Amino acid sequence: MNPELSAAGGRAREAAVALRAATADRKNRGLSAIAERLDKDRGAIVAANEADVAAARAAGTAAGLVDRLTLTHDRLTAIIEAIDVVIELPDPVGQVVRGYRLPNGLDVRQIRVPLGVVGMIYEARPNVTVDAAALCLKSGNAVLLRGSSSAARTNEALITTMRQALADAALPSDAIQAVPGAGHETVDHLITARGLVDVVIPRGGADLISRVVEGATVPVIETGIGNCHVYVDESADADKAVDIVVNAKTQRVSVCNAAETLLVHQALADTLLPRLGAALVERGVTLHADAAAATALGSAGIPTVPVSDEDWAAEYYSLDMAVGLVPDLADATQHIRRWSSGHTEAIVADSASAIAEFLTGVDSAAVAVNASTRFTDGGELGFGAEIGISTQKLHARGPMGLPELTTTTFVITGDGHIRS
Amino acid sequence: MNPELSAAGGRAREAAVALRAATADRKNRGLSAIAERLDKDRGAIVAANEADVAAARAAGTAAGLVDRLTLTHDRLTAIIEAIDVVIELPDPVGQVVRGYRLPNGLDVRQIRVPLGVVGMIYEARPNVTVDAAALCLKSGNAVLLRGSSSAARTNEALITTMRQALADAALPSDAIQAVPGAGHETVDHLITARGLVDVVIPRGGADLISRVVEGATVPVIETGIGNCHVYVDESADADKAVDIVVNAKTQRVSVCNAAETLLVHQALADTLLPRLGAALVERGVTLHADAAAATALGSAGIPTVPVSDEDWAAEYYSLDMAVGLVPDLADATQHIRRWSSGHTEAIVADSASAIAEFLTGVDSAAVAVNASTRFTDGGELGFGAEIGISTQKLHARGPMGLPELTTTTFVITGDGHIRS
Repeated sequence: MNPELSAAGGRAREAAVALRAATADRKNRGLSAIAERLDKDRGAIVAANEADVAAARAAGTAAGLVDRLTLTHDRLTAIIEAIDVVIELPDPVGQVVRGYRLPNGLDVRQIRVPLGVVGMIYEARPNVTVDAAALCLKSGNAVLLRGSSSAARTNEALITTMRQALADAALPSDAIQAVPGAGHETVDHLITARGLVDVVIPRGGADLISRVVEGATVPVIETGIGNCHVYVDESADADKAVDIVVNAKTQRVSVCNAAETLLVHQALADTLLPRLGAALVERGVTLHADAAAATALGSAGIPTVPVSDEDWAAEYYSLDMAVGLVPDLADATQHIRRWSSGHTEAIVADSASAIAEFLTGVDSAAVAVNASTRFTDGGELGFGAEIGISTQKLHARGPMGLPELTTTTFVITGDGHIRS
Repeated sequence: MNPELSAAGGRAREAAVALRAATADRKNRGLSAIAERLDKDRGAIVAANEADVAAARAAGTAAGLVDRLTLTHDRLTAIIEAIDVVIELPDPVGQVVRGYRLPNGLDVRQIRVPLGVVGMIYEARPNVTVDAAALCLKSGNAVLLRGSSSAARTNEALITTMRQALADAALPSDAIQAVPGAGHETVDHLITARGLVDVVIPRGGADLISRVVEGATVPVIETGIGNCHVYVDESADADKAVDIVVNAKTQRVSVCNAAETLLVHQALADTLLPRLGAALVERGVTLHADAAAATALGSAGIPTVPVSDEDWAAEYYSLDMAVGLVPDLADATQHIRRWSSGHTEAIVADSASAIAEFLTGVDSAAVAVNASTRFTDGGELGFGAEIGISTQKLHARGPMGLPELTTTTFVITGDGHIRS
């Protein structure tokens, strides 16, 4: 194991032992101290970010990525306000998940406890540095943060401030640390630190996630790849279908819960499909249509380009949408099982049996019934905050809030009970 | 990917799609058919096992391992009866884990759904072949079974019978399959079959588990390594302490929830420690004592051998026990955090503050308070059956029953809801 990470991980474990014993009040005081110090140090933080942004611009980084990296005073204010939301959330630690008394008198309680040490690997979004630290602190976990090198100055400023705030609040500052060192190999150090790191959560593109999964010996929670589908059933209400499809595709294109593929029942080829196509094209969407959909849309004067397997598999994150006509609902669910990333699928339908068949036929983290795919989001679902959206099946699936940052312990209480 | 496993995995996925839609009644009919056919085919099954046992004996296999491999008519009857227990258990699929209505009228339900395809890797215990298949079927999962080569004939007979029973019950027989091929490389095929296998559960010794964890790209649930501790506090009731320590160590030594280390508060060095030592030695236990414990036990005429770091780390699975005196409870929890495998720790104490400090200070799957470590068991905790005991923190921790063989889907139901 890398000696610097070993040392940092050992300090994180010690901090985690202290955090296990910290009450919600104490952890909330730590969060308040972080919010206060971030506000007090905002000049230094914004200046550090300006240096990162200048370096990114000088390196010819794309405008979208530079925007993501940029931390203005307004954005910092929003980050600080998000900490107040975390303070208001209930502490998951100590929650009794199951509790019962056995016939022999043993009391069994399954109780939420912190995971221990969480490793976060993420891209150049400065808000993740603070969000992840706040959620880990509230759930009693120490965190090792591995952000992007392009945000190195910003992250160092944020982490320095947060560590000072923990010391202000008499909490162990090693509960929040940067992964030591620089370069890509620090990811490899983190994901193989068995015994020091309890879970690694990668947040980023498909390349990052697959690299982490391939190389990790520490358990991983995969997040966020979204190839989401909307299926419009024969029984759909036309107005609702148009609203939902347009919202799912165009309300915000650069997010994982935006829709990428539209599947329409063939009975609607000459009626609702052209209306859907027109509404999408009007908002600037390029339609990548299969042969049947292209014919129907073409007859209505709506332009399309041909669809390929790359399109069915794509997470466009852009104003593009793959469009197909399906003979029936079973074909839709089969298509989705084949191509989906398992994030969110939506069905627009009024038939209860069609909805039930869709729910059984697809296997994704979330299914939206007569609602936009864009609701798969911790904030929208009332979690208050999320550390990511899991698209895997173990531990957590879908938006992950504070409870997903815990594990459990069975406490078995007797009065001298022995097995016979 | 290995082409044979790819084909088998593809068939398993298809079977899993059918099982997702199967009602509890249908799955229970499949389980009944398995129980009936196993009873009908018992002659062939026991004969196949006799061939495995003869081959194991001829190869000079240790008596304990041969016993574990042996499938008598009585043991087969017990395996068949265990299926009836699984039939009686509630189906976890469809259970609503969380359900609420959002202010905007969206109904949110988090619902249990099957994992999909489960890979089981295990040693030469024929009962696991049937137990795992029954639990996976009940929870709607297809299973790929990879047993020990020394039980190859037995497992083939059991799997052939179970597959015929599924066909009898009009369920897809590919829901239960052996991992194709022979040799150690079949483990590597299974644990890297991303996209085909949703989770791998290894059940066996430390070598097997670490090999799976190191090599897997499929998510793994680690099971069963048990280095369990009993701490006897200054406030302990002496009689309860003797009962619990003797039971935890000697009731059955070859199991993961047996105790391996005894830690005693130093205030009890000359009183309860000798009584505990005498009771253990009387039952044939060799005491591996630290210097302070050896002195106290020696003064009472109780023989010990010196303890080493290997002893503190050991899962003896034998009539051996490491024994230490600790200055106080904090030293006990520190020792446990350092050496425990995270399975089960017990405290014998009457002081509520000591119990609370112990619960915060250790971090294991289970904590027994004034009870034997031997209660960490799915059957004892009322789960009806268990597929293993998880000693990791993600997804499932402690005994795993049917709910742990599921994941969840968020179903978000609206009436044309879109995000603004």
